[in-house]
Amino acid sequence: MCGTENTTLAPRRPAVPNGTPSPDPVINLDQGDPTMYEAYWRGMGDRCSLVISGSEVMSYLGGSPGGACWFLEPKLEKSIRRIHGLVRNAAADAEDGHHVVVGTGSSQLLQAALYALCPPDQPEPTSVVCAAPYYSCYKEIAELLQSKLYKWEGDAHNFNKDGPFIEIVTSPNNPDGLIRKPVVNSPNGRLIYDLAYYWPHYTPITHQADYDIMLFTISKCTGHAGSRIGWAIVKDKEVAAKMTKFMEVTTIGVSRESQLRAAKLLGIICDDCQAFSTNTKSQNFFDYSKRLLTERWDKLHEVVKRSETFSLSKFPKDYCLFSDRFYETRPAFAWLKSNNKVKDCASLLRGHKILTRSGNRFGADATYVRVSMLGREEEFNLFLERLSTIKIGICNGNGIAHIN
Amino acid sequence: MCGTENTTLAPRRPAVPNGTPSPDPVINLDQGDPTMYEAYWRGMGDRCSLVISGSEVMSYLGGSPGGACWFLEPKLEKSIRRIHGLVRNAAADAEDGHHVVVGTGSSQLLQAALYALCPPDQPEPTSVVCAAPYYSCYKEIAELLQSKLYKWEGDAHNFNKDGPFIEIVTSPNNPDGLIRKPVVNSPNGRLIYDLAYYWPHYTPITHQADYDIMLFTISKCTGHAGSRIGWAIVKDKEVAAKMTKFMEVTTIGVSRESQLRAAKLLGIICDDCQAFSTNTKSQNFFDYSKRLLTERWDKLHEVVKRSETFSLSKFPKDYCLFSDRFYETRPAFAWLKSNNKVKDCASLLRGHKILTRSGNRFGADATYVRVSMLGREEEFNLFLERLSTIKIGICNGNGIAHIN
Repeated sequence: MCGTENTTLAPRRPAVPNGTPSPDPVINLDQGDPTMYEAYWRGMGDRCSLVISGSEVMSYLGGSPGGACWFLEPKLEKSIRRIHGLVRNAAADAEDGHHVVVGTGSSQLLQAALYALCPPDQPEPTSVVCAAPYYSCYKEIAELLQSKLYKWEGDAHNFNKDGPFIEIVTSPNNPDGLIRKPVVNSPNGRLIYDLAYYWPHYTPITHQADYDIMLFTISKCTGHAGSRIGWAIVKDKEVAAKMTKFMEVTTIGVSRESQLRAAKLLGIICDDCQAFSTNTKSQNFFDYSKRLLTERWDKLHEVVKRSETFSLSKFPKDYCLFSDRFYETRPAFAWLKSNNKVKDCASLLRGHKILTRSGNRFGADATYVRVSMLGREEEFNLFLERLSTIKIGICNGNGIAHIN
Repeated sequence: MCGTENTTLAPRRPAVPNGTPSPDPVINLDQGDPTMYEAYWRGMGDRCSLVISGSEVMSYLGGSPGGACWFLEPKLEKSIRRIHGLVRNAAADAEDGHHVVVGTGSSQLLQAALYALCPPDQPEPTSVVCAAPYYSCYKEIAELLQSKLYKWEGDAHNFNKDGPFIEIVTSPNNPDGLIRKPVVNSPNGRLIYDLAYYWPHYTPITHQADYDIMLFTISKCTGHAGSRIGWAIVKDKEVAAKMTKFMEVTTIGVSRESQLRAAKLLGIICDDCQAFSTNTKSQNFFDYSKRLLTERWDKLHEVVKRSETFSLSKFPKDYCLFSDRFYETRPAFAWLKSNNKVKDCASLLRGHKILTRSGNRFGADATYVRVSMLGREEEFNLFLERLSTIKIGICNGNGIAHIN
């Protein structure tokens, strides 16, 4: 989301605005805006509505006394622990010493984790790395304020310094959807696991993750990106306290309205997963979303199979502990590759009014683009339609191809 | 709020918990938690309730196309411009080129302003100063990440470097409630006005502020601290765009639920101010709050007048453009001074189970403490009761006095 090529995210003309559809709209698939899920929640009706009176949640203080995070709403903490217990994607039991820290999205939690893990008195900033292709915002976050605490050092595959470092492990990976492990082999490192996409609609849940710091976000779990709610599961109480301190100084906590809404929505997903487990006709949120993503991926694979311009990787099939069946990863993004006649895939697509994020933003080359699979249905279908018309004829120097 | 003496803000035992009142509770007046206003909003009933369905405000994108801040809810922008127009405390007309930028509280906006005003390629960090006594969180915010962009240099009165600098002007000032102007006399400076308390319940509105960057927060305006909504009025579009970029990278926008709630509450205050202007029996939010604060200040002055241990400054009376009458400033904090027999006023009060923030946190000496005037009624009365019993007898070395 952060740092689009145009440096501003002012909303563009929507694909199908209210009223008359525009005949030739720009389709924005640069951001991972999860609007695909709106239809599901609309179908849930009033059951998911949140009502807050004017006098509720006014105080800064809402957290549990004695907890690691003083501004974490107890209801949200309960829902977070419950959904992880149900889905079995992450160890999050209070009894086992897993602390929950809430943040204004997982971006803020990543910064909080960097702050917590970097000693303030080192002669050199701690190195921060991630295996390429890496989520484009990590670099922007790490470089924004030119901190003396840490320094972005890029692709973890190329990292060979002796000093302390932090490796971010994104699994499934953004942008390419692959399951990841750490790549730097050194005892001086600390790990931050970004597990934003480790949910059963995107990938089989093959094991219960149980790492020192694990980051999640409501945006990619339920689709409520506008709420700006992320959470970390943290084993070390000192680290959790330092992360909390970071949020305290930078934003004095996290919106309590958003926390209550996230608590409610996660709770409803859990209720339905438990209620529908014996009812094969109904679908819980994860099943519904997986079906939709599977349909989209099947359609995209069809288009790409017929294309001489684009290609996609295949994903492995695996057994999912939560769903109790085998299926393929269906990532939130397509990591689309153009053939070598195209120098700049993002420019090519932009020429067709499809906005995507260029591979070079992820430490990869410009024949790749990241395409959101989570947009609204009309946008996605329009994207497929346009993609299927692109056939490379004569390619000019800057990668803008003439189209047959 | 940030950086309490105990480094954690885990809520303490409340003064009057549900059920049986505790006979000897700790009173926390360290933070400026504006729970005083809960009673007002409770009295407003369902009219102020916000209802959000499960499918609303899911997208990252909610702002107006073409606006300076892509994640600012149009309803919130409208309410912000409306309330400033009504109260006449700040110039905020779109037609006059005033841009609105929303933040996760005004703390985030202060960081965004520092980021926007500091050139990234300077040999030395830009100095950041504020006249003492200054809000304790400025120092913590500026020093948190050891940024190479800016450096906290403390009291603006002592600043005499030649290089570029930023002066924060807090008016009315936190902690002492005084009206402030810049103190550094140099052409190399940029100014950030923190006008969190420039509202008619705290101080007469003597002029319409019209500065380059002005910061406000819903916490101190309506009392909804838990929402974490602040806003900046910014004249320069480039600066507004850079501030927006800061929020984009650090938190990818601001909670949309909180923005909608803030929009509604500010709108209701405006409606009532306009409806009640011809009805002398009813009270709008500002009149109600001013009356409550006046009562509290009168009581506190009474207690302090009888005390040989504590003293308070007097505030000037001035004409308020909004209320159309003369009155004294009634700040959100009391800046309480102990006599010279007490070395550490905060410790003295802590001995009486009253938590306050020590003067040395604000660049002043430890005979001062900042005391929140915005707590719940029971807490405030208990504070007065205990304060009136404190009489200094023999003072030991660490400032803990023996009490008669």
